[in-house]
Amino acid sequence: MQEQQILKNTNAEILNQFNASLLFDKKLYAQDIKGSIAHSKMLALQGIISVDDQIKIETGLLKIKGEIESNQFVWKIEDEDIHMAIENRLGQIVGGAAGRLHTARSRNDQVATDFTLYVQDKTLDIKAKLKRLIEVLVVIASKHSDTLIPGMTHLQHAQPINFGFHMLAYANMFRRDFERFGSSYERNNYSPLGSAALAGTPHNIDRFKTAELLGFYAPTNCALDSSSNRDFALEILFNIATSMMHISRLSEELILWSSYEFGFVKMSDEYATTSSIMPQKKNPDVPELLRGKTGRVYGNLIGLLTVMKGLPLAYNKDTQEDKEGVFDSVETIEISLDILTAVMETLIINKENMEKACQIGHLSATDMADYLVKNKNIPFRTAYYITKEVVSYANSINKDVSQLDINELRKSCSELSSIEDEVLRYLDLRNSMNARDSFGGTSTAQTKVQIELFENWLSCN
Amino acid sequence: MQEQQILKNTNAEILNQFNASLLFDKKLYAQDIKGSIAHSKMLALQGIISVDDQIKIETGLLKIKGEIESNQFVWKIEDEDIHMAIENRLGQIVGGAAGRLHTARSRNDQVATDFTLYVQDKTLDIKAKLKRLIEVLVVIASKHSDTLIPGMTHLQHAQPINFGFHMLAYANMFRRDFERFGSSYERNNYSPLGSAALAGTPHNIDRFKTAELLGFYAPTNCALDSSSNRDFALEILFNIATSMMHISRLSEELILWSSYEFGFVKMSDEYATTSSIMPQKKNPDVPELLRGKTGRVYGNLIGLLTVMKGLPLAYNKDTQEDKEGVFDSVETIEISLDILTAVMETLIINKENMEKACQIGHLSATDMADYLVKNKNIPFRTAYYITKEVVSYANSINKDVSQLDINELRKSCSELSSIEDEVLRYLDLRNSMNARDSFGGTSTAQTKVQIELFENWLSCN
Amino acid sequence: MQEQQILKNTNAEILNQFNASLLFDKKLYAQDIKGSIAHSKMLALQGIISVDDQIKIETGLLKIKGEIESNQFVWKIEDEDIHMAIENRLGQIVGGAAGRLHTARSRNDQVATDFTLYVQDKTLDIKAKLKRLIEVLVVIASKHSDTLIPGMTHLQHAQPINFGFHMLAYANMFRRDFERFGSSYERNNYSPLGSAALAGTPHNIDRFKTAELLGFYAPTNCALDSSSNRDFALEILFNIATSMMHISRLSEELILWSSYEFGFVKMSDEYATTSSIMPQKKNPDVPELLRGKTGRVYGNLIGLLTVMKGLPLAYNKDTQEDKEGVFDSVETIEISLDILTAVMETLIINKENMEKACQIGHLSATDMADYLVKNKNIPFRTAYYITKEVVSYANSINKDVSQLDINELRKSCSELSSIEDEVLRYLDLRNSMNARDSFGGTSTAQTKVQIELFENWLSCN
Amino acid sequence: MQEQQILKNTNAEILNQFNASLLFDKKLYAQDIKGSIAHSKMLALQGIISVDDQIKIETGLLKIKGEIESNQFVWKIEDEDIHMAIENRLGQIVGGAAGRLHTARSRNDQVATDFTLYVQDKTLDIKAKLKRLIEVLVVIASKHSDTLIPGMTHLQHAQPINFGFHMLAYANMFRRDFERFGSSYERNNYSPLGSAALAGTPHNIDRFKTAELLGFYAPTNCALDSSSNRDFALEILFNIATSMMHISRLSEELILWSSYEFGFVKMSDEYATTSSIMPQKKNPDVPELLRGKTGRVYGNLIGLLTVMKGLPLAYNKDTQEDKEGVFDSVETIEISLDILTAVMETLIINKENMEKACQIGHLSATDMADYLVKNKNIPFRTAYYITKEVVSYANSINKDVSQLDINELRKSCSELSSIEDEVLRYLDLRNSMNARDSFGGTSTAQTKVQIELFENWLSCN
Repeated sequence: MQEQQILKNTNAEILNQFNASLLFDKKLYAQDIKGSIAHSKMLALQGIISVDDQIKIETGLLKIKGEIESNQFVWKIEDEDIHMAIENRLGQIVGGAAGRLHTARSRNDQVATDFTLYVQDKTLDIKAKLKRLIEVLVVIASKHSDTLIPGMTHLQHAQPINFGFHMLAYANMFRRDFERFGSSYERNNYSPLGSAALAGTPHNIDRFKTAELLGFYAPTNCALDSSSNRDFALEILFNIATSMMHISRLSEELILWSSYEFGFVKMSDEYATTSSIMPQKKNPDVPELLRGKTGRVYGNLIGLLTVMKGLPLAYNKDTQEDKEGVFDSVETIEISLDILTAVMETLIINKENMEKACQIGHLSATDMADYLVKNKNIPFRTAYYITKEVVSYANSINKDVSQLDINELRKSCSELSSIEDEVLRYLDLRNSMNARDSFGGTSTAQTKVQIELFENWLSCN
Repeated sequence: MQEQQILKNTNAEILNQFNASLLFDKKLYAQDIKGSIAHSKMLALQGIISVDDQIKIETGLLKIKGEIESNQFVWKIEDEDIHMAIENRLGQIVGGAAGRLHTARSRNDQVATDFTLYVQDKTLDIKAKLKRLIEVLVVIASKHSDTLIPGMTHLQHAQPINFGFHMLAYANMFRRDFERFGSSYERNNYSPLGSAALAGTPHNIDRFKTAELLGFYAPTNCALDSSSNRDFALEILFNIATSMMHISRLSEELILWSSYEFGFVKMSDEYATTSSIMPQKKNPDVPELLRGKTGRVYGNLIGLLTVMKGLPLAYNKDTQEDKEGVFDSVETIEISLDILTAVMETLIINKENMEKACQIGHLSATDMADYLVKNKNIPFRTAYYITKEVVSYANSINKDVSQLDINELRKSCSELSSIEDEVLRYLDLRNSMNARDSFGGTSTAQTKVQIELFENWLSCN
Repeated sequence: MQEQQILKNTNAEILNQFNASLLFDKKLYAQDIKGSIAHSKMLALQGIISVDDQIKIETGLLKIKGEIESNQFVWKIEDEDIHMAIENRLGQIVGGAAGRLHTARSRNDQVATDFTLYVQDKTLDIKAKLKRLIEVLVVIASKHSDTLIPGMTHLQHAQPINFGFHMLAYANMFRRDFERFGSSYERNNYSPLGSAALAGTPHNIDRFKTAELLGFYAPTNCALDSSSNRDFALEILFNIATSMMHISRLSEELILWSSYEFGFVKMSDEYATTSSIMPQKKNPDVPELLRGKTGRVYGNLIGLLTVMKGLPLAYNKDTQEDKEGVFDSVETIEISLDILTAVMETLIINKENMEKACQIGHLSATDMADYLVKNKNIPFRTAYYITKEVVSYANSINKDVSQLDINELRKSCSELSSIEDEVLRYLDLRNSMNARDSFGGTSTAQTKVQIELFENWLSCN
Repeated sequence: MQEQQILKNTNAEILNQFNASLLFDKKLYAQDIKGSIAHSKMLALQGIISVDDQIKIETGLLKIKGEIESNQFVWKIEDEDIHMAIENRLGQIVGGAAGRLHTARSRNDQVATDFTLYVQDKTLDIKAKLKRLIEVLVVIASKHSDTLIPGMTHLQHAQPINFGFHMLAYANMFRRDFERFGSSYERNNYSPLGSAALAGTPHNIDRFKTAELLGFYAPTNCALDSSSNRDFALEILFNIATSMMHISRLSEELILWSSYEFGFVKMSDEYATTSSIMPQKKNPDVPELLRGKTGRVYGNLIGLLTVMKGLPLAYNKDTQEDKEGVFDSVETIEISLDILTAVMETLIINKENMEKACQIGHLSATDMADYLVKNKNIPFRTAYYITKEVVSYANSINKDVSQLDINELRKSCSELSSIEDEVLRYLDLRNSMNARDSFGGTSTAQTKVQIELFENWLSCN
């Protein structure tokens, strides 16, 4: 029988551990306190609690905030969640007034409010970090708008582009991310506070007032929806997933470019692990880890989508599973953006190797064909046949077509036996790059136009 | 050796089947033709092709559109994709001019343009369908703003609400979806056309003109990004996933409400399968299938996220895997919204059962406690102790507290021996519902306010 | 310039935090120590290190184990991972010998070994917990093999079954899970130790010996594969996902059955939260949380699948992202199985309500039709027409067909005006249940057969 | 009113399209017919139907099979699913006997049986294809067990290995896949037929007989579980996902190796797309597409996991969503394995480039340090210091340490001024590779051992 008792105790402990969210939701302490202060102010303004009580409550909550931030707060698992932990402590500090704070509020709308505030706060943080990364990319772009690098498709050399232009591709991705976070911020900036358990409250509350105090645009419309809505959490999870996908693409390129085979960049010593015996060896650990972290944020997204599937209205305990994934994704993207920004800031760029690589793959062969068509009035098919001959000849003497001199060129194909020098201009790789001067194209001039557009955007956002 | 030959043929066939996208991407025929016409017009305006050629091209393309729509077009797997199928057919119809259409364009920006156009078209369709569903929900809400139904948490009766209010919870979800689709439409309404393979083009094109002709706001900024960007596809997949999640929640409730145990609603005969022998039995197949279809749209989202992870710039053949999932999710949400709208329009609502269910669970017990505190100046703890007694008494005579008469109430607890009749008002379920009159609350009055807000919104969107 | 310095420090700290795995991989301390002891023994047996060194190493490692388990071990983030933390501490304790432990081993095979050992250990734990849950379900089944409950399809009453049979359905699911875990255990019980970095080692090691010492069947075959293989981790993640899916189905039913509408079961007070004012209200928090936890384990599975996609051989830092998800899924399934077992053990089953529910839906109507066909030689179509009449009549007098007496039955349809009493046997719900006596069917007799099969299985596993 | 009518028709059509599964489940026709023949034989053996009827049914079913396979069968969407399509046609062919086929069977167990048979059939097909791929890899391995290639970690040169050994890493992955498919085949080879709707049947059937006739080991145990169990479908989806992940890793390497930068392999012309103008350019479309197809199979897995989450027992219409994902994953893995096998069979391997690449990164520097420790009794730290000097010297003269002659070596560091020639043996890359001779290591000898193990395995499986 004693054993039975022990079993029950154990079960009770396990159950407590199973049910409690305190260990993770204590991250919401600041939002919880902020929400409670706003609620108490509104209650006092509406005459539901006394001004005196409001002052006690606010003072007590600020004291608790101080205790938490100075690590003096005593966390007890029996409190189950951050809300009870703060409420119970408030009771110790201010006595009866603490009880009045919960008037016209339920755990359901309190949780929804705290979590929305957290997501909104973090959305702004992430936007700031994305902006900082974009700034760094634009700075690199402006330094390298004339640095040749092979533009790839299928990981095969395709056309010569400039490295600045390549960086702008990522700047554009992160700018879309920035805007996506901005858009979800706008769409979700409404206050669930006052929705109560699921149906509103008989008390004469002013939800517009608490919304205003908390920086929301307005209260949400429907209490039943508000108490179990987690769209805002799904949106931040998706936005983070998309952003990490972009980070994974840049990471992949950094890893490739750091290989002996490419040799385009080196991580600065801080961001690469080295081998004690081979000082020249540098492992691109950081971009590998960034690429790997894509997994967890995808997982967190699918996790919450799974939780929400098929849940009847309104609050169900399943929803307690909404927070850890969001916390994890938020912390992952924040550190990832910081680290990536630092990596890019300190990246050592090997221009020589980049330019040398452009001389593989006859990247300007197409330009010569275009020249023949446009300037020599040679029919398309003939021009391409001629170019094929030239490529073939270049291969036979182990040169890239861009490296042929005018004599070699004249020898390469009978139709070119008296070709003028000007054709060499078209075979030149930098000219080839600069020829692509359409809006959004890779020419140095266009790249500079795009940089300016970004600089304007940065100064406005 | 002949066997070898056979093997090779087989391999070639398998390979063709493996590589070809024609079987699914032919859905893009209208967008491909639209894009090509716009491109040809711009080429003519810029003097890159002749006006005569442009007319031939446009006429030819419209002819092909007619052939496809009247099922006269001959699909050949060797064409590999919709773009080649149309291009080759155009060659047959207009000869040499067809070849000039591809000037200053590559497969990469053509695919990106077609697919963006498709996603934008479908986004508008889905918005229209969401709006129609919201309209139906609002109509139900206005008919049932006084129909009592137990508001649930944890699938347990919690507070009496009205059924109209319950419908508005879903209307709010679908409205957020509508806005989310609207926001991704805005963010992605830029034209990749003219990005060419990855770096722009040497031709003197006017990307603003093609953007305008295709209904885009402007051209995209960076060719390298544009040719491999699939953010717009991820966004529609996520938006659909979130929307299907909402549909799965309503479906879950329809299934529950259709059970013998709940008995709140019946599907109309069209939308339920019946048993030949038991005419009263109706299986809620439609909401079950709707709930089940959540799986595929979640899968499509994770599918494309997986494809895009870690892809180096720019175009990689992996990206060919972007379309089928989007087509499937789009078709799933479109038919799901149509069907759900029809189901809701024809739903048979059993008010009596809903109201009867409210009499289980002492839903107004809290209201009585509130009454004692507010009107009788009884301390909170005492009031709750009294209420507990009343609930206990009610249980003992198999009644809900809302069903007690004044004598029973007086008998239930010594402190209530001389309680006035007015307490009965607070025990009344409808009064309890109407008491929750805060903004977004369940009272009939507030429900009507919310309906009006929706009617305004519907007339503006 | 000082600011620059500060920034660098901060970056270094952030980087450390980003790279380090110590905070989570310290869970592997026991496996790491076990692996190192086995490795040292083999090295000594092969004469690669001295017996004296081996003894020092082993003693030192056991001391460290003691320190960790008594919370005396000092964790330092600079150690980066559990392997370095132990290695560095070993150096402090035994000096030079510590360095010799790492002979013929690299971090890559050490991590793979530790992680495999962890997964194998946990697989056995999970199997034991599944078995215990099955035991509890079989006990319930044996108590309730005669308790009627409506068997449902589409959440609609379909046929009368017994509650024990219903429990056995879940026992079968968990048994398949047990076997699936068993099968992955067998398939993955091979030792990667000695694979070294990726290519094996020039030292004369005996991998069969370390495999034996660690409880593995044999060493793995290919060093290059072994150092980056994570199939075993994916398998446990999938097995857990499938198991949690089964748990989510049982949880869904517990939630439904706990509702007022169903009223089939109650959670014991320990496993349900109650409301202070309404003692009869019990929220099924535990099954809701169990159902919700399905999300995170699905997410962890997709997370690791994403990490592994497209990784070139051999070790890449991405793989560091393999552990947290596995730890989380393992801990989730372990506590979930414990809690679910306790919930089922203490579940209060309301037989009366279950049996009463069977009287809704004319569950034995089909049995009557069958009787007419088999015993009265009435053609199929006629029999069904008659039954439809009977159902219709029963509805008209608000009875279930199982409740009709012989007079009512004779009145219900002209063809039955002189039907014998024996038909009533076929309308009886318990008889209807017992009629389904095919192998695996619901009859009490078959249920008992199945229970016996389970008891045999339990005694053999 | 006429409009109303039209709307209803349209709704009916949409609904039909929404509910019907015929368009995709017709893939199960062979399994459905096989199952029905077995069922009819058992019914006849048990005396439930006449032998005459059985013969009619079997003949009719075989005729239908012929019609389907010769494209003469008329598919009608109104039949809704493959089972009704065949049943209705059977009625046309054999009249009344067709109706008796459905005795003691329901749609639920029929679907479960057909789908299980399909999954089992395909599991065997996939195993055969995996085996064929392994064979090809082992053949390559035996040709290249002496071909040097740089073994990589972090995509950085780490140690010299042989290309055969590298191929065996993949052979091991696919072998684990083979075994995983084999294990799920075993675990799921039980017949649900005779489970009927959910509870078994009152008919005197012999489920062991139908199990035997269908190649199953035995009937399943519990009808309620069997009618909604989809574990077998989840298992094949997971097995395929893991297998595609392995394929994506090999594909990634093929893409890398095909780049100009690596230049290790070329796809044969059949499996690479070429550019008309640049004959040397080959895009690795096939491995890119293989890598991309990982997305859809991950998506299909998460899709079905989502469908099954939280489904109450027994059959729910949600489960209709189980098939398309499985069909898609099965077809994807089958064609992927065929294509990959053909690609590997015809792969052009550039040994020279592979070996040349080994001369970058001082891959044998560690071997020299080991030599100094082991043969010269130089303390570890000193040996490493010396090696660092040598590497540094080699860098200064643009050589790899493996390329140094004895004079250069003696000059590189004062401690080596009189080093013997034998050190050169340790710097030799091939020797370095062959030194790693532990079980599972990269030496040519060990690689041959492993090849033999594979050949044995292949001849036994």
